[in-house]
Amino acid sequence: MTVIEAIRWSSDGDAVRILDQRLLPGREQYRDLTTVDDVRDAIATLAVRGAPAIGIAGAMGMVLAVDPSEKNHGVAMARLIDAHERIRCARPTAVNLAWAVDRMMSVASRQTLAGDALRNLLHAEATRILDEDRAMCRRIGEHGATLIPDGADVLTHCNTGALATGGIGTALAAIYVAVEQGKRVHVFSDETRPLLQGSRLTAWELERAGIPVSVLVDSAAASLMRDGRIAVCIVGADRIAANGDVANKVGTLPLAIAARYHGVPFYVAAPSSTVDASTSTGEEILIEQRGADEIVAAFGGQTAPANVEVYNPAFDVTPAELITAIITDLGIHRPPFSFAPPAS
Amino acid sequence: MTVIEAIRWSSDGDAVRILDQRLLPGREQYRDLTTVDDVRDAIATLAVRGAPAIGIAGAMGMVLAVDPSEKNHGVAMARLIDAHERIRCARPTAVNLAWAVDRMMSVASRQTLAGDALRNLLHAEATRILDEDRAMCRRIGEHGATLIPDGADVLTHCNTGALATGGIGTALAAIYVAVEQGKRVHVFSDETRPLLQGSRLTAWELERAGIPVSVLVDSAAASLMRDGRIAVCIVGADRIAANGDVANKVGTLPLAIAARYHGVPFYVAAPSSTVDASTSTGEEILIEQRGADEIVAAFGGQTAPANVEVYNPAFDVTPAELITAIITDLGIHRPPFSFAPPAS
Repeated sequence: MTVIEAIRWSSDGDAVRILDQRLLPGREQYRDLTTVDDVRDAIATLAVRGAPAIGIAGAMGMVLAVDPSEKNHGVAMARLIDAHERIRCARPTAVNLAWAVDRMMSVASRQTLAGDALRNLLHAEATRILDEDRAMCRRIGEHGATLIPDGADVLTHCNTGALATGGIGTALAAIYVAVEQGKRVHVFSDETRPLLQGSRLTAWELERAGIPVSVLVDSAAASLMRDGRIAVCIVGADRIAANGDVANKVGTLPLAIAARYHGVPFYVAAPSSTVDASTSTGEEILIEQRGADEIVAAFGGQTAPANVEVYNPAFDVTPAELITAIITDLGIHRPPFSFAPPAS
Repeated sequence: MTVIEAIRWSSDGDAVRILDQRLLPGREQYRDLTTVDDVRDAIATLAVRGAPAIGIAGAMGMVLAVDPSEKNHGVAMARLIDAHERIRCARPTAVNLAWAVDRMMSVASRQTLAGDALRNLLHAEATRILDEDRAMCRRIGEHGATLIPDGADVLTHCNTGALATGGIGTALAAIYVAVEQGKRVHVFSDETRPLLQGSRLTAWELERAGIPVSVLVDSAAASLMRDGRIAVCIVGADRIAANGDVANKVGTLPLAIAARYHGVPFYVAAPSSTVDASTSTGEEILIEQRGADEIVAAFGGQTAPANVEVYNPAFDVTPAELITAIITDLGIHRPPFSFAPPAS
């Protein structure tokens, strides 16, 4: 099994090589980004997407700001500060992006290097961020795989795989590792309206890895459960509250409710950094509302009356009571969930 | 409040006037169908859709087969038999279509008329079928309106309105009558993937009638219920088993499960002819699987890998235990449901 690598260094190490996700599932095309603006645009236009992958792209992009022939520390730092600013704003809501470029600035500021030395320092730090993400995915996958039975039909939602991270993903990591271990797994992938990350991206990367996958409209998942055809549901998370309530892509809540009604285990897989223990319950999580165009003008056509009111939340909140277990890089957490608040 | 009329006679009574639903929600264009082939094509290409509306169109189309100047009964009947054959096959799965054109043939066969007399006879019968459908919608609406509180936010799925029937619809009829009675109602309309009848048709006809409506992706409905924003869910039915299990457009089952979980009443509204008492439970209902294109090539784009497996059921089955009441033209049926088998 070969899992796609959506972001890595080019072979000479001088460019950020990304799989252009805007062209999926129709075309698999890699692009070498060689300037800060290339990286900024790739993030802004969703050529690279998924919170961990965006953070990695941002960190790698910072390296491109360093001119190896520029020996003056002050000039080099001025260029870095400018790059930091431009990349950090490419998508203001992605927390990982700000976190990653801030970490790069902090490393650069600790010494008075310039030229090759500065570039090498930052190259190593960006590579470390990438490697840490890969290791985190691997650990989630290893914990999660223990919950996937041999011969299972697994239902998932949105894209939580290699296309969203530097490694093998979060929820999909559990599936990849289960398959590596020799288990036979078939995946049902919700298409995930409105942006169709499930049908466009998850189905594509699973096919690419040789894992059997079927696509369905989101509202057909309950029928599969009623027919006894789903062994396990596994999804990702955008934010996990201290009590185990989970904010994730819209459509997660109805899946969890249908899973409970039909007695199907419902798992959430995410990096431990997704736990926000300072948020006590899901009630406190503000849900982003997105524009009407995704519904009124879907796929270039007119799919609803032009000026109709639209209710288009990006995420929903699944109460902890519907979740069988939460899988992170630290292990498998079972209810009652109680994530400790951060030390202060 | 003016509810759209999607099918009626042209003012001179010589043509079948339909609203071309293929152009909605972008354009409101009426077409006068003057030949049997016009009607057959309009049904086959979904210019007219919805089981009751298709039956009415078929019956009216039979009238167009009669040449008023043809005085020979045998010749006139030969033309009618040919028209019956062509219209009946326009959409083989719609039961109402076969029922309506068979009824027209049976009326024509009872006498030895031709010319104007035959045409008038059939014109009157087609008008009767239209009027019966209108009256049936009205009765469903009057029963259903008693379940819609003043000030309610009502969630619905697919299109069950004037665009699908000769009258004011089935589930939407309850809303239309409630508004007629002076109740303030706001509708949340699921877009209803894969064919988007909710966003394209329901939102359009409600706006046209001046009823406030918001559109959402199907999987966002549960979030509205969780936020306490839905007073009532009301949907249609394609087939109702003797025990009250309901087959309806895919996406009905997860709505019913979410409604139960959140304590929201879940109503089904349909003509009493939808009850198939010879089917004892929903387990016996065979669910039509539709083609992959609706998911892989949605809206003209490539929305999933070209050859990916697809699970695309047209309908799902909601168990009776999740249904608060079934509304028909005969009244409001409460659980435990027990529809009598037909006399045999």
